[in-house]
Amino acid sequence: MGGNTREPSRSAADRLLSLLAAFSSDRPSLTLSELAEAGSLPVSTAHRLATVLTEWGALERHADGRFHIGLRLWYVGALAPGHRDLRSVAMPFMEDLYEATHENVQLAIRDGKRALYLDKISGSQSVATLTEVAGHLPLHATGVGKIILAFSEPRLLADVVADGLARCTRHTITLPGVLAETIAQVRETRLAYSLEEMTVGASSVAAPIFGADGTLVASLALVVRSSANVQALAAAVRTAALGVTRQLSPPISTGWKSKLDR
Amino acid sequence: MGGNTREPSRSAADRLLSLLAAFSSDRPSLTLSELAEAGSLPVSTAHRLATVLTEWGALERHADGRFHIGLRLWYVGALAPGHRDLRSVAMPFMEDLYEATHENVQLAIRDGKRALYLDKISGSQSVATLTEVAGHLPLHATGVGKIILAFSEPRLLADVVADGLARCTRHTITLPGVLAETIAQVRETRLAYSLEEMTVGASSVAAPIFGADGTLVASLALVVRSSANVQALAAAVRTAALGVTRQLSPPISTGWKSKLDR
Repeated sequence: MGGNTREPSRSAADRLLSLLAAFSSDRPSLTLSELAEAGSLPVSTAHRLATVLTEWGALERHADGRFHIGLRLWYVGALAPGHRDLRSVAMPFMEDLYEATHENVQLAIRDGKRALYLDKISGSQSVATLTEVAGHLPLHATGVGKIILAFSEPRLLADVVADGLARCTRHTITLPGVLAETIAQVRETRLAYSLEEMTVGASSVAAPIFGADGTLVASLALVVRSSANVQALAAAVRTAALGVTRQLSPPISTGWKSKLDR
Repeated sequence: MGGNTREPSRSAADRLLSLLAAFSSDRPSLTLSELAEAGSLPVSTAHRLATVLTEWGALERHADGRFHIGLRLWYVGALAPGHRDLRSVAMPFMEDLYEATHENVQLAIRDGKRALYLDKISGSQSVATLTEVAGHLPLHATGVGKIILAFSEPRLLADVVADGLARCTRHTITLPGVLAETIAQVRETRLAYSLEEMTVGASSVAAPIFGADGTLVASLALVVRSSANVQALAAAVRTAALGVTRQLSPPISTGWKSKLDR
């Protein structure tokens, strides 16, 4: 993925992308030599490519000489349909949920074997979480992730188990049998919990959002202090997720509906 | 910017970036031949580069054969500091503002001679606007844009005027003298209005967010139905913008403050 091996045959395109791949939420800024190392490139090549990227706006170089991701890459990236379309449909429902609870509201989708957070609402009173918009978290330790495991092809659960169930806190489910049982329950109840399994002090409840074809599109969650009664919020999350699901499905008869609406 | 001229000496990096530059909110998906045309490339070259970009995750190809921006470009792009840091500080204040008003709340920064929208909150009752997250709008026709004109170097206003003041609606200020007078007033009152100047039916009030060094960082706005009393919301926007400004400035004496806080 990262292109971290030296191959004389690597194309210029690969080299350019390896520079972008060097950035992550853990490493949001890099020096030129860090960039060169991450891309397995001579410093002179890294400098030339970083200059092209900076001129275009994919990177920006700050006064301290460090490179950051540039705003143009952000606004081009924001054209990704998964982000743009789903976010605009889900946002009003997420707002309602926030207003009703004042807790963290999170929207996540599957990205390979991880949950990718598309959007997040949190007020000044909400509990601190590890979630960042555009950040990834493991599937087995999060409420949104368990929803993804429950409503994806069964091979995903097997793959996640095969990779090993990392212990994020002492409450994380690390036994494959226990996880399989939990996921079967999630499939039945259409609700998933994470009880301090990702972050000590925070619990979550998540519900699925389905597309018009009935497949899972995303997962919506509330994350609250673990002292709160997270079960009591399940109905609110489910209601909001059903609202988004309904918006994603075309009405049964458009002609009839539009007559009533207009 | 777009690399739309045929130059035999164009580097591979330039060609790759010209494919990404082909996407915009008006053209969020393209066929292979549209991509080739936008990048001024032979179809075979465009195909090879688009394949590299798709494998990396910068593009995705849908079942209908059209290319879209890929999720990986979105989450790498979201590492841009202007977006990430400012958004996380501003979000709780934007939430408060939304909850108090249930109107559109928008956060914008300057991007060259346009306003770039970093974030937006809108509920189901909020008035429809042209604003998209990661989208651009002109400076002279928007509340956030007038704030940017008022608190940037004077050359910006001159440049915007020199480019011509496009008429977005029949209420848009298109006379340079009137715009200059308006901007002088904005500088004095630290509030900017757009009264159906961008979208008929929608008006906005905007206030500046300053950084620790006193320079403009961003602009915060409420966008409401033009039938509403937008002036009555000025104090709310100003309060929220002052709150963000305060958070962006380090406390006068950290030692003293941290003692009280802990």
